[in-house]
Amino acid sequence: MDLLIVNPNSTASMTRTIEAAAKAVAAPGTRIVAATSQAGPASIEGYYDEALSVPGLLAEIREGERAGARAAVIACFDDTGLDAARAMARIPVLGICEAALSLAAFVARRFTVVTTAEAARVPVEDLVARYGMAGRARVRAAGMSVLSLEDPTSGSGELLRAEIRAALTQDHAEAIVLGCAGMADLARRLSEEFGVPVIDGVSAAVKQAEALAALGLFTSKRGAYAAPSPKRYSGAMASFAPMPSGTE
Amino acid sequence: MDLLIVNPNSTASMTRTIEAAAKAVAAPGTRIVAATSQAGPASIEGYYDEALSVPGLLAEIREGERAGARAAVIACFDDTGLDAARAMARIPVLGICEAALSLAAFVARRFTVVTTAEAARVPVEDLVARYGMAGRARVRAAGMSVLSLEDPTSGSGELLRAEIRAALTQDHAEAIVLGCAGMADLARRLSEEFGVPVIDGVSAAVKQAEALAALGLFTSKRGAYAAPSPKRYSGAMASFAPMPSGTE
Amino acid sequence: MDLLIVNPNSTASMTRTIEAAAKAVAAPGTRIVAATSQAGPASIEGYYDEALSVPGLLAEIREGERAGARAAVIACFDDTGLDAARAMARIPVLGICEAALSLAAFVARRFTVVTTAEAARVPVEDLVARYGMAGRARVRAAGMSVLSLEDPTSGSGELLRAEIRAALTQDHAEAIVLGCAGMADLARRLSEEFGVPVIDGVSAAVKQAEALAALGLFTSKRGAYAAPSPKRYSGAMASFAPMPSGTE
Amino acid sequence: MDLLIVNPNSTASMTRTIEAAAKAVAAPGTRIVAATSQAGPASIEGYYDEALSVPGLLAEIREGERAGARAAVIACFDDTGLDAARAMARIPVLGICEAALSLAAFVARRFTVVTTAEAARVPVEDLVARYGMAGRARVRAAGMSVLSLEDPTSGSGELLRAEIRAALTQDHAEAIVLGCAGMADLARRLSEEFGVPVIDGVSAAVKQAEALAALGLFTSKRGAYAAPSPKRYSGAMASFAPMPSGTE
Amino acid sequence: MDLLIVNPNSTASMTRTIEAAAKAVAAPGTRIVAATSQAGPASIEGYYDEALSVPGLLAEIREGERAGARAAVIACFDDTGLDAARAMARIPVLGICEAALSLAAFVARRFTVVTTAEAARVPVEDLVARYGMAGRARVRAAGMSVLSLEDPTSGSGELLRAEIRAALTQDHAEAIVLGCAGMADLARRLSEEFGVPVIDGVSAAVKQAEALAALGLFTSKRGAYAAPSPKRYSGAMASFAPMPSGTE
Amino acid sequence: MDLLIVNPNSTASMTRTIEAAAKAVAAPGTRIVAATSQAGPASIEGYYDEALSVPGLLAEIREGERAGARAAVIACFDDTGLDAARAMARIPVLGICEAALSLAAFVARRFTVVTTAEAARVPVEDLVARYGMAGRARVRAAGMSVLSLEDPTSGSGELLRAEIRAALTQDHAEAIVLGCAGMADLARRLSEEFGVPVIDGVSAAVKQAEALAALGLFTSKRGAYAAPSPKRYSGAMASFAPMPSGTE
Repeated sequence: MDLLIVNPNSTASMTRTIEAAAKAVAAPGTRIVAATSQAGPASIEGYYDEALSVPGLLAEIREGERAGARAAVIACFDDTGLDAARAMARIPVLGICEAALSLAAFVARRFTVVTTAEAARVPVEDLVARYGMAGRARVRAAGMSVLSLEDPTSGSGELLRAEIRAALTQDHAEAIVLGCAGMADLARRLSEEFGVPVIDGVSAAVKQAEALAALGLFTSKRGAYAAPSPKRYSGAMASFAPMPSGTE
Repeated sequence: MDLLIVNPNSTASMTRTIEAAAKAVAAPGTRIVAATSQAGPASIEGYYDEALSVPGLLAEIREGERAGARAAVIACFDDTGLDAARAMARIPVLGICEAALSLAAFVARRFTVVTTAEAARVPVEDLVARYGMAGRARVRAAGMSVLSLEDPTSGSGELLRAEIRAALTQDHAEAIVLGCAGMADLARRLSEEFGVPVIDGVSAAVKQAEALAALGLFTSKRGAYAAPSPKRYSGAMASFAPMPSGTE
Repeated sequence: MDLLIVNPNSTASMTRTIEAAAKAVAAPGTRIVAATSQAGPASIEGYYDEALSVPGLLAEIREGERAGARAAVIACFDDTGLDAARAMARIPVLGICEAALSLAAFVARRFTVVTTAEAARVPVEDLVARYGMAGRARVRAAGMSVLSLEDPTSGSGELLRAEIRAALTQDHAEAIVLGCAGMADLARRLSEEFGVPVIDGVSAAVKQAEALAALGLFTSKRGAYAAPSPKRYSGAMASFAPMPSGTE
Repeated sequence: MDLLIVNPNSTASMTRTIEAAAKAVAAPGTRIVAATSQAGPASIEGYYDEALSVPGLLAEIREGERAGARAAVIACFDDTGLDAARAMARIPVLGICEAALSLAAFVARRFTVVTTAEAARVPVEDLVARYGMAGRARVRAAGMSVLSLEDPTSGSGELLRAEIRAALTQDHAEAIVLGCAGMADLARRLSEEFGVPVIDGVSAAVKQAEALAALGLFTSKRGAYAAPSPKRYSGAMASFAPMPSGTE
Repeated sequence: MDLLIVNPNSTASMTRTIEAAAKAVAAPGTRIVAATSQAGPASIEGYYDEALSVPGLLAEIREGERAGARAAVIACFDDTGLDAARAMARIPVLGICEAALSLAAFVARRFTVVTTAEAARVPVEDLVARYGMAGRARVRAAGMSVLSLEDPTSGSGELLRAEIRAALTQDHAEAIVLGCAGMADLARRLSEEFGVPVIDGVSAAVKQAEALAALGLFTSKRGAYAAPSPKRYSGAMASFAPMPSGTE
Repeated sequence: MDLLIVNPNSTASMTRTIEAAAKAVAAPGTRIVAATSQAGPASIEGYYDEALSVPGLLAEIREGERAGARAAVIACFDDTGLDAARAMARIPVLGICEAALSLAAFVARRFTVVTTAEAARVPVEDLVARYGMAGRARVRAAGMSVLSLEDPTSGSGELLRAEIRAALTQDHAEAIVLGCAGMADLARRLSEEFGVPVIDGVSAAVKQAEALAALGLFTSKRGAYAAPSPKRYSGAMASFAPMPSGTE
């Protein structure tokens, strides 16, 4: 089966990191189809970048579903556009934050998410609450930019490790969740270094997407994720107009 | 002062309803500047419409702030794009759901939001929880489309009244919040009919925006609503790239 | 319109501070009517002072409503007697804590209330929870008495500033709420000093009261705030007996 | 030991009902001292009556503590004035709602409070939330006045029974809490009739007060219940001024 | 890899239903090892059965881990003994309630769990709250015994369908979670019948267990799930004494 | 009346500490019957010990109820097996954590539980949340083993005092709850030392059990604590099979 994984920022090198992490854990029958958004920010840090990455992201998911993908993963830890994508698509769509938190909850009672920039901390805290983990998970920002993860000379690795250390000693964290798609390649190494489960959202979402597909599950089209009713969209968004059901 | 009110859907007749409601309550010194989104859905019903209305909405707010507006109101009850707009703008930005709930809380301990379509119910329930009102407010959908509000022959008025009656008897509602910008002209009449406070979000937001402006308050640029860091935006979103601070 | 603002403690100099803050932000058509409680504590610090200020406070609001006030503000950050006043009055009644928190929520996602004495901290924490802000707002006590705010030689300004600094660095606060009516004159100066929104409850409540009045909203008389049923009151409270509706 | 039980409304016949219920369960060494408030409403139904019963109530508790009572019970299900009384007194003070809920939680996982008038329902719901039972307990109003409980011809017994039946079938209630001090004499009979635990707050509070006294526990004077700091009280409240510690 | 699935009740026919459901969804490389508890109740309905099934369950998991299982699933919807098993084992242990809820959350915003007997309803409600889903999921009991699911003449299928219908119309459920391991074979058929996702916990847990194994994740041994410290166990429990680490 | 108090660990010296604490506070008419579990761990620290102590504990409670005990106390701060015991027994069953928290709530608004080992901290945090105290109570571990409390040379007293000091200064605790049955003899002395209420669960539960008995209250047999339905139990658990009602 084809599993679409969309990098909703436009930085292709980050897509390659994500794709590699996805391929490293994909089951034999899964073909990872990685896509980079064609419209949007070079990185997603905070609410503004988040919102403006959604149309480009939705375009990729729509395209991927038409091309036969059996599930889709949004590879940004803010779970940008997740509800919109679920309303649009019939295939399951997963956010990497939601996926990582749900796996962390299986192996630890208390854990800490370590994200990148301070601007991402509150949005992730809100997600943690939305997913019902407010009493179990804390969020820390390592004080670095998303793109610095792509640069081996940036010192981002040290900032990340320092924050993990603080999580273990100050938060009594039992496991660590890496709070950025750009950290997808670091989970195993950090887990060995620190001796606790370290969970990366990209690989978590790939496995959960495979799980949903294997069980024949699709997004409910009843209630909150009902298909959008047909209507006119104007201007730059005209191409996104929902079609009357049956015409697609 | 100029107060920008943006209809994030592209239906100009609804903008006129909103504008009239805003003007009816504006203070003498307030000039209402109503704008219709140039890009997006004809109406906003559910997560998909919501997400795709955001770029058009942000463009109007950016434009309005540059033109000297002192505050902005997003005239859609889903508070679409609210966090993104706050991160982008320095002027206060208000959502009509948040504004209506906060005024309702001053005049009642329990109240019910009556919205339009079933697809809007869960998104509004999530907003109610986000604004800390989950224990005080219920949400009902009257089972009608947003655009039917513009059509006097649609029977939407009767559907709305029936749902208000149910809220009073079954939910023990003490006040009613109208859960759609398109209902902005109905609040006073319904309040007289039912003998309880009926709150419309558009007029609530206009008054709260005037309040913030009068107090000299602006959106905090520290933490969650910090200005987006400068970066490249690609494709159809290129024009939204945040500029280095100081260059604007 | 007349807007009644009641200082529920009996310190007239504090009423003057409150009145000045209210007048500084009142709209042209608003006449601020400030009243000092004739019965109760010289300052309100903790649950005991709170409870015993209520009859004096209610007397002022009843009097003010009879004299034609269109809304009332209770100028104590503990929102003393708020529910009782709403049950008694038909005009809207606002607490300055509730008003300040609701405005802070428009300009910041996380904020900190800085109050005076340690004895006031837990009561304010309980209010923050009651208003649905427990996940967004913290409460700090600056370790000073309410009346020291009236004394320029008390060092209270420095204690307040130190606590604001702690809120910004330790709580990641994005905005500050001043947690005492006696701080009403300090908001603008502190906002400039610290570069974040600083919100004073007195001025917040004045503007929200004007908003409610402009929208024609009154306290719901259905449910929790229904007019008290007629009954005998004995002893020192005899004058508070609710009258059969229609006789007033 | 002397156990003070204060009826904060001024209806002496209700005090006798309460006193009898208290005496029926008091331990051999406990002397029940019942007091009727000398100032306040004839019954407490809703926020207004609640607030105005507090000074009269506090006067009785202060008097009782001076006279040597070892604990005090506030015999009104709204737990009127509870925090103020705890700040004032060193002896433990119990509310009958808090006491009843805590005992109900020992014998059932889900239960329903049946109170009297609709105006009391929301205040009790707020107490249930305050005591951490929002997920376990529902509140129903039987639609009768408090004083009708004193009148055998009023039909209040039937209204109460009908509401208990509804609680059992519709709420899946496993136990019933009687939500008014005036029902103190009915618990055992209703428990036998319905075959589930029926808990009366007056007797619950008497036993919990005895428990606290036997364990040598007093109200903490650190933090929220610290003794009020000495200050002037004016007007009708002058006699309530807290004295400098040591002078009493 | 070997995936252990333990039926914590002693009814072997139910183990076969569970095993078949597990095998139907297992990945090619997964060998399902199904075990029936050798000590405990014939079915688990309520807290008492739950607690007494734990030692037998833990024995099977300990045995299975020693025999090389890479993950374990507890096939009872009450997630009986889950925390104890996680503290004991290093391999991941999954409960079928937790697993089902986490998958349901990916395909629906609101859903309903339909369990068997009324005695199981409150325990499952408590699990729903523990897993952070209290605002999203309701629990219904179909009013039948667990063992009746094994008997085609019992009418249990009709009871289940009636409750699903009620969930869809009254709860606005968007998906259904089957709240008993004995329903594991019904999910696909019911999903087709009702046109919404129907999720069975056994298959959900198998896929999540495979996911954790594929990612190299183990239960955290830091904090809540730290290995029990070595100590003496007496009587019938002697064989469960934790061994000093390193001796096993 | 006979009041059964069960030490669910097998260490008889700890039973003697518990028994002495219970006898010290028991009312004249109460006969304390202390029992040590005949099967299970020497001490209970964390989820694994907890679960495996339940059958031995239930056996003692069943035996005690048959022998005429009027109420039972589970003397382990994890409230091990509480729900199962309530489903099994008709007499009231109390956990010492639940009992201690409910008394602490009468004398303080904020308090801290100080428990023994780090492995016990999260389980107690979960209990605090279950009992609705998450906003009021914190949990600290003093970093010592349960059995060290029995050894005067272990330095456990100093560790406990240090943690109490931290609770007072860092948590603003107004009262302290001792989070281990083995600390039952220390409450009065520590209360005098620190000048705040210090609450021991064993004595709290004894008094609450007496309260329930005096009020004629029994565990509800409707809903969550309904008697387990008759069924076969196999293997080592065979003797626990619930009997058809009426046969016992």
